[in-house]
Amino acid sequence: MVQPCPAKIGDTLDDVVTPALIVDLDAYERNLGTMAALVEGAGLRLRPHAKTHKSPEVALAQMARGAVGACCQKLSEAEILAQGGVGDILIANQVVGAVKAVRAATLAQRIRLALCVDHPGNVEDLSTAARTLEATIDVLVEIDVGNGRCGLPPGGSAVALAERVAAAPGLRFRGLQAYHGKAQHIRDFGERRAAVRQAAELTLRTVEALEAAGLDCETVAGGGTGTLLHDIEAGALNELQAGSYVFMDADYGRNLAEDGATETRFESALFVLATVMSHPNPQRAVLDAGLKALAMDAGPPQLKGVPGATYSRASDEHGVLDLERENLLAHGQRVLLIPGHCDPTVNLYDWYVGVRRGRVEQVWPVAARGALA
Amino acid sequence: MVQPCPAKIGDTLDDVVTPALIVDLDAYERNLGTMAALVEGAGLRLRPHAKTHKSPEVALAQMARGAVGACCQKLSEAEILAQGGVGDILIANQVVGAVKAVRAATLAQRIRLALCVDHPGNVEDLSTAARTLEATIDVLVEIDVGNGRCGLPPGGSAVALAERVAAAPGLRFRGLQAYHGKAQHIRDFGERRAAVRQAAELTLRTVEALEAAGLDCETVAGGGTGTLLHDIEAGALNELQAGSYVFMDADYGRNLAEDGATETRFESALFVLATVMSHPNPQRAVLDAGLKALAMDAGPPQLKGVPGATYSRASDEHGVLDLERENLLAHGQRVLLIPGHCDPTVNLYDWYVGVRRGRVEQVWPVAARGALA
Repeated sequence: MVQPCPAKIGDTLDDVVTPALIVDLDAYERNLGTMAALVEGAGLRLRPHAKTHKSPEVALAQMARGAVGACCQKLSEAEILAQGGVGDILIANQVVGAVKAVRAATLAQRIRLALCVDHPGNVEDLSTAARTLEATIDVLVEIDVGNGRCGLPPGGSAVALAERVAAAPGLRFRGLQAYHGKAQHIRDFGERRAAVRQAAELTLRTVEALEAAGLDCETVAGGGTGTLLHDIEAGALNELQAGSYVFMDADYGRNLAEDGATETRFESALFVLATVMSHPNPQRAVLDAGLKALAMDAGPPQLKGVPGATYSRASDEHGVLDLERENLLAHGQRVLLIPGHCDPTVNLYDWYVGVRRGRVEQVWPVAARGALA
Repeated sequence: MVQPCPAKIGDTLDDVVTPALIVDLDAYERNLGTMAALVEGAGLRLRPHAKTHKSPEVALAQMARGAVGACCQKLSEAEILAQGGVGDILIANQVVGAVKAVRAATLAQRIRLALCVDHPGNVEDLSTAARTLEATIDVLVEIDVGNGRCGLPPGGSAVALAERVAAAPGLRFRGLQAYHGKAQHIRDFGERRAAVRQAAELTLRTVEALEAAGLDCETVAGGGTGTLLHDIEAGALNELQAGSYVFMDADYGRNLAEDGATETRFESALFVLATVMSHPNPQRAVLDAGLKALAMDAGPPQLKGVPGATYSRASDEHGVLDLERENLLAHGQRVLLIPGHCDPTVNLYDWYVGVRRGRVEQVWPVAARGALA
């Protein structure tokens, strides 16, 4: 069930078995450095989201550059990160049910673990498990600041749940989770900034209400690659959870900066290497990478360095390219694709193939690939 | 990298760790029987597509009911099916490059292997590998009968390539691959039938041209669940490759029969079991199954048995439900989702959980999960 690694150290891109997930190590390392400088300059903590990369290797590289730990979305991801040496993890999500509560408490015996709640029954399950296992689980109350997904409304009901957390044996109230994912995809600079400011306002008001109730927020967490500068400017968060920046989605690259240009702070560092497996006529080539090799929810991938070729249609195992001119591509040729959305694309692979100056330098397992639970 | 199995034999659905891939064994077995009776009645061979299920267990169950073997899309799938005991496999697709040609020839030393070609260079690579390894690879020439993907135009150019195959040492010309995937998604009965008839016409004409050139087509392969009755009626194919029927996609269920009713011959047998992980207000519940747990290319999943609840929005790890009324669902409750598109959904999981009368009866690995190459 684990696929064989598609490359060996020293291989060229022509040796790698396709489709394969390629990391441009230079671009990846520059992205790590750019982000580290940004958050250090802003005086904030960075806890990068591991849901993007699902790899302890990447999480540890982020921590080596100053990140305080990792965050993730699933308990099973946290378990795998911990197994890979990550000792400080926030599950930026709910962990629901008595059985998973016991797993969380078991993990909290070994590492510093935090997670989010938005329901009193969930608080009870977690407290019971933590008390039974003599563990301490740190807890953030999640508020909905415009994302329309999980979380309580900002203000009073969040304070009431926080009080319940603070009073629950085995749990420690640590602060707020205030994530506005939708804002990350607003293309216009001004509109995006306005959405983040509004979210920050609601967050700050809830922090004040908690303080008035005697509850300190050590952590106010949220943010993402698409709203990074606004998150810093708005000033409500002290811990940023951006994840996509390591690889940079084509989608986030479409966000506009203040001057109307597209955002170029982070570079595309993740690619899918594919082969032209069919080239039935001059206008059409077919790649061996379709829906099972590329997430399409943010649109089809872009081809790197082949102007005039457009990835126009995906089926399960095929990607159809429309070619504007003859002789753009040859049968058997390899191309690099920039995924529209990195996170679910990474989740389709077992291996990262890290490349520098045209040679495979490292391979890392996508250790938490398929960690859904 | 392989996730732990989410269930034990004897578990109830409430014990299974979510999200999980559930097979309703009764419905699955009825689907197997319905298809076996259909193709037997039509006097055709069935070679079900394993790209749907990626499981030797399922392929062997199909063969036990009369299927002549399995087909699949990728060489790595064929290798895994062979390892699981499937001895007659057609890769209904191109296998490109000298390295993969050697792998194909190696596999052909052990099992009866066929694959498709649409390019002379590919024929050469395969012949070289087969000759070197003293293996015989059976070859179908793929023609494009309306799908707009791989394949040569029907007629003369297909005959020319077939002659090249027939003359190539190590290869055996076996016939044609003539798949019309697009036709499967035409909702209207009459339009769908017309598309299949046109494809059949092109196929039959190419078979005749091959015969005129002295080349017999032992196999004329294609077809799918969405066009099954038309494929049988049109009479061009002697080997059907339907795959989705085992589980039945919500998408194919939207195809209309002659009387305008939706197609009900095959039953939904595959579900994703998910948990309500957040229920922040009476109009909204959030499931723990998003883009990494469900393929969305054919639309969001349907909820089984919860009228008034609509899966309206997916993010990577969340599914947002819109609820028409209060008290439709409770926090922590489990629901079954019917995927819009089974094939890429299956590819997200490591395990099938087979359930009968509310109890887990079998678990099977999704052995070729992630077999992209």
